[in-house]
Amino acid sequence: MARRGVIEDLQALRRFGAVNFVESSFGGDGRAKGVCRPALSKADLDARLWFAERCADAGLTPRIDRFGTVLAGKGGLLCGSHSDSQAQGGWLDGALGCAYALEVAREVPGVSAVNFQDEEGRFGTLTGSRTFCGEDLDFDAMSLSPEWAAPKQTLGEALEAARPTLETSNYFFDGFLRIEEHHRGFFEAHIEQGRRLERAGLECAGVSSIVGLRQLRITAFGEQNHAGTTLTVDRRDAGRALLRLCAEADEAFGHLAGWAQDLVWTFGIVDLKPGAASIIPSLAEAVLQIRDPDDDVLGAAEDTVRELAKRAAVDVRVSHDRPPLLPTPMDEAMLGHLREAGVETEMRSGAIHDAASLARAGVPAAMLFVPSIGGVSHAHHEDTRDADILKGAQVYVEAARRMTSSSPR
Amino acid sequence: MARRGVIEDLQALRRFGAVNFVESSFGGDGRAKGVCRPALSKADLDARLWFAERCADAGLTPRIDRFGTVLAGKGGLLCGSHSDSQAQGGWLDGALGCAYALEVAREVPGVSAVNFQDEEGRFGTLTGSRTFCGEDLDFDAMSLSPEWAAPKQTLGEALEAARPTLETSNYFFDGFLRIEEHHRGFFEAHIEQGRRLERAGLECAGVSSIVGLRQLRITAFGEQNHAGTTLTVDRRDAGRALLRLCAEADEAFGHLAGWAQDLVWTFGIVDLKPGAASIIPSLAEAVLQIRDPDDDVLGAAEDTVRELAKRAAVDVRVSHDRPPLLPTPMDEAMLGHLREAGVETEMRSGAIHDAASLARAGVPAAMLFVPSIGGVSHAHHEDTRDADILKGAQVYVEAARRMTSSSPR
Repeated sequence: MARRGVIEDLQALRRFGAVNFVESSFGGDGRAKGVCRPALSKADLDARLWFAERCADAGLTPRIDRFGTVLAGKGGLLCGSHSDSQAQGGWLDGALGCAYALEVAREVPGVSAVNFQDEEGRFGTLTGSRTFCGEDLDFDAMSLSPEWAAPKQTLGEALEAARPTLETSNYFFDGFLRIEEHHRGFFEAHIEQGRRLERAGLECAGVSSIVGLRQLRITAFGEQNHAGTTLTVDRRDAGRALLRLCAEADEAFGHLAGWAQDLVWTFGIVDLKPGAASIIPSLAEAVLQIRDPDDDVLGAAEDTVRELAKRAAVDVRVSHDRPPLLPTPMDEAMLGHLREAGVETEMRSGAIHDAASLARAGVPAAMLFVPSIGGVSHAHHEDTRDADILKGAQVYVEAARRMTSSSPR
Repeated sequence: MARRGVIEDLQALRRFGAVNFVESSFGGDGRAKGVCRPALSKADLDARLWFAERCADAGLTPRIDRFGTVLAGKGGLLCGSHSDSQAQGGWLDGALGCAYALEVAREVPGVSAVNFQDEEGRFGTLTGSRTFCGEDLDFDAMSLSPEWAAPKQTLGEALEAARPTLETSNYFFDGFLRIEEHHRGFFEAHIEQGRRLERAGLECAGVSSIVGLRQLRITAFGEQNHAGTTLTVDRRDAGRALLRLCAEADEAFGHLAGWAQDLVWTFGIVDLKPGAASIIPSLAEAVLQIRDPDDDVLGAAEDTVRELAKRAAVDVRVSHDRPPLLPTPMDEAMLGHLREAGVETEMRSGAIHDAASLARAGVPAAMLFVPSIGGVSHAHHEDTRDADILKGAQVYVEAARRMTSSSPR
């Protein structure tokens, strides 16, 4: 069967950090394909060493840097994605783009393959691809995001811990790999992670732009006290204030979404301290993530939260939990090559991808999406039909061929 | 100075699990007196062994059982409280009643002293005093409440771990101590943990009744998915549903409190799973504690939550996180003795105390409250003025003297 290598590569990659977990409520194909391969974990590093070997098999000379970012080949069209996963991740998020890049490396001359580190944000936002694009990040100031259940460490410490494993590779590069002048563009395939393609019955889509994102940390400061003896009038209940603020923000965003129909928002983390049934919380925190293709909508949403914070019953501080990301358009010429390769539709990406780092750095960037069953992602039962994976690979290879044979930027 | 022994005993007890923590925002006397002495921790067991020795010094023969509950003396009026603390507790909650019991033991004939295990609910509700009153609890089915940061273990396992320490005592009793027929009543002193006494400028109060309590666990079941690519219409967001339900319940309780003025409610625990900024929560839980002197009010509040749960955007289950506690009146004759000893006021207790276990078991029970500075409790900066501690001890000893010389029940 054509392009069977893509499925085999995905299955091989899936073994690194495989989670044997069957969620019976899953309406998909019933196979459990979850992975736990967080950036710089043992499973992640092993997967990257594996990826470097596969690049060498395809005839591209790989290097693997202190991050575990793999760059194979010299110049030309850069193809790839990332192989790190969410803590409770699926087998295709990032991995699909890596497998497609290997397929292109085997079939199309004039390409390089890349596998970026920490796209999922274990330590920051797009840490690997931003470093690759020349940003100087302070690794010792970047520490594990609280949602990643693991020992607290800075990125600098995690890199030191990873070094012995990376050094075992013949391809180890003792530094950080950077984008090269002769890279003519970046082309990334990814699962859609939404339901638009599935609903429309389409096999793939080009990506016109990547949404902007603001992530706010909302912190309410109250006074710890006894939950039975403290009268309501005497309370400075941080938990109650935060819960009300979140519900009011949710209500307001609902109205905002009336005209900003792509707006999505998520309270993914809520934490009360000290966190006991009999104690009034002294501290309450929520992390709110807001995404929209229009930065003005993001600004309006943030303003709403700041207004609500001013009116809260206790002191509330609102801060950026990570630097805001502006909406990022993809390269028009490369979108043209995708259309020539048979891609009939375009959509915005609600997810952030490494392609955004490269586009922001001035590198022409494009993306191809394949359908996600039920729109599920960032979950163990994330999946895509084999036929869609294979069709996507065919389109990806064809588009890459066109991109490499067009005149360089 | 009169009754200086009480202060010395409290200071000695404070050393077990002392937390060296100064909270600069504290408006009290500025000294840090926090303790961390959770039930069956090393600090807790050491404090109990110390308490048994002090009982022996006072001339009462102590026994310390497999729980670490200490019972000293034979029959008569049972005086005491508990010496275990909250994980982030103060130096007086429970300890005050233990120190007063030692003082009575030194001064009044015909009393016994008791120090119950796990009043704070590390493993359950009033586990020590309920066992003492004859309830047969299934220790292996009772495990650490999630808010107690410690290794997960059942109460049975914790008791096994405690045994070597308890066995070092000459007073070790290899079983569980129980109430005796010839105990004529139970008399417990405690800090108020609220601000009523302080506001009224009073030195102490008798307790007319102990409030009822319902603790509900509210669990919302959603579907884990990507926080960027999943359209609002496609989401089954457990976190969003829970936040809205909590805010709506809070609003409804505010109306309910219009006529039920003693009603208090606390969302002390909220947890979203998997708990990541970029992931729509699949599971969201809150623990809601409701207290009121009127069980009908508690019923109305619970009904409100159940109605809101039915109307939530995702499936929500409401369950009793621990068995409901009915409001419990204190003994009228003993309240009379308190008045004779000079206590001028009575109040309801918004906190649950071991006295409730004994009253429910049919033992006449009474309580004396002393003021809490700023009403603060279940916090490191919980405190009471020395003068109030000493005055309370004087009243407690006088009332106990009257209770022991009245005709037995």
